[in-house]
Amino acid sequence: MSEKKVFDLIIIGGGPGGLTAAIYGLRAKLNLIMLEKTGIGGQIALSDIVENYPGVPSVSGIDLIARFEEQAKSFGLEIKFAEVEEIGSEDNLKLVKTGSGDFLTKSIIIASGAKPRRLDVPGETEFTGRGVSYCATCDGFFFRDKEVIVVGGGDTAVKEALFLTKLVKNVSLVHRRDALRAEKIHQEQALANPKIKFHWNSVLQEVKGEKKVNGAVIKDVNTGELSEIAAEGIFVFVGILPNADFIDCEKDSGGFIKTDKHMKTSLDGVFAVGDVRDTVLRQVATSVGDGAIAAFSAQDYVDSL
Amino acid sequence: MSEKKVFDLIIIGGGPGGLTAAIYGLRAKLNLIMLEKTGIGGQIALSDIVENYPGVPSVSGIDLIARFEEQAKSFGLEIKFAEVEEIGSEDNLKLVKTGSGDFLTKSIIIASGAKPRRLDVPGETEFTGRGVSYCATCDGFFFRDKEVIVVGGGDTAVKEALFLTKLVKNVSLVHRRDALRAEKIHQEQALANPKIKFHWNSVLQEVKGEKKVNGAVIKDVNTGELSEIAAEGIFVFVGILPNADFIDCEKDSGGFIKTDKHMKTSLDGVFAVGDVRDTVLRQVATSVGDGAIAAFSAQDYVDSL
Repeated sequence: MSEKKVFDLIIIGGGPGGLTAAIYGLRAKLNLIMLEKTGIGGQIALSDIVENYPGVPSVSGIDLIARFEEQAKSFGLEIKFAEVEEIGSEDNLKLVKTGSGDFLTKSIIIASGAKPRRLDVPGETEFTGRGVSYCATCDGFFFRDKEVIVVGGGDTAVKEALFLTKLVKNVSLVHRRDALRAEKIHQEQALANPKIKFHWNSVLQEVKGEKKVNGAVIKDVNTGELSEIAAEGIFVFVGILPNADFIDCEKDSGGFIKTDKHMKTSLDGVFAVGDVRDTVLRQVATSVGDGAIAAFSAQDYVDSL
Repeated sequence: MSEKKVFDLIIIGGGPGGLTAAIYGLRAKLNLIMLEKTGIGGQIALSDIVENYPGVPSVSGIDLIARFEEQAKSFGLEIKFAEVEEIGSEDNLKLVKTGSGDFLTKSIIIASGAKPRRLDVPGETEFTGRGVSYCATCDGFFFRDKEVIVVGGGDTAVKEALFLTKLVKNVSLVHRRDALRAEKIHQEQALANPKIKFHWNSVLQEVKGEKKVNGAVIKDVNTGELSEIAAEGIFVFVGILPNADFIDCEKDSGGFIKTDKHMKTSLDGVFAVGDVRDTVLRQVATSVGDGAIAAFSAQDYVDSL
């Protein structure tokens, strides 16, 4: 086989965790590259506004991540756009296989994040992009002065519902429980907002429409009663799934990568940070902490070879 | 006993971890107060420059922490300057005893940080403030164009030595090992700096002086040989000790508070974050992650009462 370049570290994913790992890794003089599937930023880049990242009050997700990226590039970060398909090994090295070629490396930090969970109900796939959306920041604008449905009662669902009230006519919030699970500040804002109508103990059963969405069937989980809500947009925020199919290591029941306090996975020299790992809280602040620790652990590992 | 105000949460310490916990706790609508012994900021406020906190490139420690403080205050943070002496209990509540009165609370986040370790050699205590210092940012200015000694080889020691070269005539770096343990970027800068002279495998044995420091005796740990270095300043950076004497809970051999991944200590309703806990990395980035998690854990705990 021909001589191939060997990296000290490959970081998979360009969200807050990956970019922090890059800042620390480059300052530690690791020869590293970042592989990103689509665009820098991860889920946070879709956030309308971020108010709880310490040191940068009230900033859009896109602007916050642009700061991270600029800082990482000031230390020499090279980003390659490529989707990782599989991770294998070659001699004592790891082989990262992508659609744009293979890369050899001594260590890996997985920072590939997570993606929205789908409802898996009739009409959902058919109408995705034609009324069904997983990102209010991205698509809310298309529903100005229309009726929309938001599914979910967690922090993301409530924040996105609040965001949508600035644009749309009314929001019907469909939640399977009888209380919200969002940050209290968001709960209070939502409960006080006259544009949000709450459908408690309810699940969305079917997306209805012809060429585009025109409504949905919802079911009361206590009585089993069905009813229909007219709406042109349906925004789904019912949890997230890890982007971890390409790596075969120990995972929890949700598919999130198991890590120890050094961010080590069950594979030697492979670390995981942020939303993709079995963390207790998914926030920019926590991904940043993870990224710093993982870069130190990767440096230790590379030094020990 | 008379009715006393009961807080949901008391945060002990106003560094990055405590201020992040405050931001998250206040957004979660917890009725909380921060107790700080001396001044807001913790150890990071003594840092000349911080380049590795993501999102805020190249900022002084003081300016960075001022941003944290302002953000926390925008959510209504109240800070009381008081030194915690002991934590007891009263009914099902915790009683935080300070020199400025006692406070009742349902939960506590300990964010009291750490302080420099001393050498414990003859002359050290006698000459502290008269040549012996633990903070180059604070005291370096007093040694313009003088000879100084830096003790230590970790990241703080090397960063502070580099900072001092901008002010002083020469730095003699005394390190007990034969290699530095700093971030590589700092190692390279230090090794290439003509103003830094390295005394490897050496320990500082005695601080010499009359009214003020005029030198130090150092010992070669391999040969036992003693020698003297003339210097007017001696800066000591040989590790840190946790500020945790006021709390009786499980600690590691270094006295750092043991925590789980939820930042829970061995005491119900008591959490610990940042430098004071048994973390694997002490950085602003990691304290921030800890603070966010601890606030969520405290909220869960308070909701469960």
